[in-house]
Amino acid sequence: MHNLPKLSEEYIDPNTYPPGVAFMDGQYLTMDKAKISVLDYGFLHSDATYDVVHVWKGAFFRLEDHLNRFFRGMDMLHMSISCDKAQVTEILYNCVALSGLQNSYVEFICTRGTSPDFSRDPRDAINRFIAFAIPFGSVANEKQMQRGLHIAITDIVRIPPPSVDPTIKNYHWLDLVKGLYTAYDQEADTAILLDSNGNIAEGPGFNIFVAKDGLVSTPEFGVLKGITRQSIFDLCKEMQIECVARDITPNELKAADELFITSTAGGVMPVTKINDKPIGLGSVGSLSKRINEAYWQMHGQDKNRMAIDYPTKSEVVDGC
Amino acid sequence: MHNLPKLSEEYIDPNTYPPGVAFMDGQYLTMDKAKISVLDYGFLHSDATYDVVHVWKGAFFRLEDHLNRFFRGMDMLHMSISCDKAQVTEILYNCVALSGLQNSYVEFICTRGTSPDFSRDPRDAINRFIAFAIPFGSVANEKQMQRGLHIAITDIVRIPPPSVDPTIKNYHWLDLVKGLYTAYDQEADTAILLDSNGNIAEGPGFNIFVAKDGLVSTPEFGVLKGITRQSIFDLCKEMQIECVARDITPNELKAADELFITSTAGGVMPVTKINDKPIGLGSVGSLSKRINEAYWQMHGQDKNRMAIDYPTKSEVVDGC
Repeated sequence: MHNLPKLSEEYIDPNTYPPGVAFMDGQYLTMDKAKISVLDYGFLHSDATYDVVHVWKGAFFRLEDHLNRFFRGMDMLHMSISCDKAQVTEILYNCVALSGLQNSYVEFICTRGTSPDFSRDPRDAINRFIAFAIPFGSVANEKQMQRGLHIAITDIVRIPPPSVDPTIKNYHWLDLVKGLYTAYDQEADTAILLDSNGNIAEGPGFNIFVAKDGLVSTPEFGVLKGITRQSIFDLCKEMQIECVARDITPNELKAADELFITSTAGGVMPVTKINDKPIGLGSVGSLSKRINEAYWQMHGQDKNRMAIDYPTKSEVVDGC
Repeated sequence: MHNLPKLSEEYIDPNTYPPGVAFMDGQYLTMDKAKISVLDYGFLHSDATYDVVHVWKGAFFRLEDHLNRFFRGMDMLHMSISCDKAQVTEILYNCVALSGLQNSYVEFICTRGTSPDFSRDPRDAINRFIAFAIPFGSVANEKQMQRGLHIAITDIVRIPPPSVDPTIKNYHWLDLVKGLYTAYDQEADTAILLDSNGNIAEGPGFNIFVAKDGLVSTPEFGVLKGITRQSIFDLCKEMQIECVARDITPNELKAADELFITSTAGGVMPVTKINDKPIGLGSVGSLSKRINEAYWQMHGQDKNRMAIDYPTKSEVVDGC
């Protein structure tokens, strides 16, 4: 036999990670130190739920809605953590404050976890809570925000509700990733997947909205009930624009006056091409612009925000 | 504002992990040190493929078949690693030899990885290879092997092929985990999911076989093409038992003479109850026993095995 290598004393990770602060097991850590066991069923079985809230100009936006969805998801998956909503809020607050990030993408996760003997019974596992705050990210980059996104409608079917409940935010993304590669092959920026009836579903990390003859619509079946999606409903109501959730066919998407996608990662993002065909005039439409502006104005309303006091160094004390 | 906690210098993981040895980034590590970044898309998007081979009495079983499936899966997901099959073999060998485990569950994984700026474009990520050897595990425990497993047929639909290709071994398990909780509610040991046509698909980590009037059958559509499943085809051919892959209805399962499930984690495991109704005589059937014995005999054939020379301490040298 060949000579065997030695065991290493410690794992040295050669990869580089973004700035930010994570929380795991009572500890606040820089992102390069935030690591989970390869045996965690959140990884090995994607047995996890999560949520993402953003911080904009030093304040959380609609944090309570994200918390409610997250706690509902844990319930539905038979998971529980020792923190209540107030405690999770404090942890997220601490991650952002310690990171110093004024604009941040804040993810919080519950995984099934592991059991000491690696039992295959999920009831034996100790569920784990993880959170992290990293710089704000967007589905659309600056150039795409200006010219509008180019989207490919694929024939890939978003994992349907009889398999996985899409209202429980989850990490089952292989269909969405396949969509991305299909889109790249067509020189599009991102993809739309279909629902199991052949109607429009959603894309990688976003909901989609169609505007036609003054009516705004978004799919209802087989999609995540996005918080930004909800913000669009709320805004349209205020702005007296009719907005409904319903089945939408691929052809309706192609014949739209305007299209935009919504995500906590980026907000309201215009779409100007579908399958290489321009939408409307082929430039960002006026309704999309108005809704986008209104969305960012919402961030200033007291009911939607929770401001963060960022520390000076002397304010940081020993925790937990 | 409240006083902020301090950042921790190092992450201290309070959890306990099984014995074994992992490989990451050129390093061999005990299982408590094998950790991936929470930002790896293998975790955050379950964007990964993997395989599991077992070591039995000091030898790998059908390693080449597992390697072939793994490399095919990476290709299909647009992933690549710097190791070829011979190098992966050497890594798996080293993990097992260093672990000292004579019977081992050996998992190897390729994740999408991360990019330094946490890009959302999967093409920007550096794919990661991880492997580990831990003690051999089984879907069925000893008691269940004796009395036969009790299985619940659920109405949950296994994630269908138009969403995720089941022949690429993947971590999308939320449907299977839901199946387990549904089974536990019915005091069953594990679950069977349906395919999108209402036929029998597979269960959490296993394929299922039906024996009726001397014919052995297993589902063909919407399932993982298990290596143990392939071993059953091979064995039945040798034993001159007719064995086919075809659509199987839930009623056929209930009316079977014998049922068994197959998995690298446990081999051939008998089923004696479906939805609280006994199968056949309600005890482990003679055909299941014969096939199980033949399966373990296969492990002694030279073409199926690759023996491991376990080290004495003086043989372990500096690696890489």
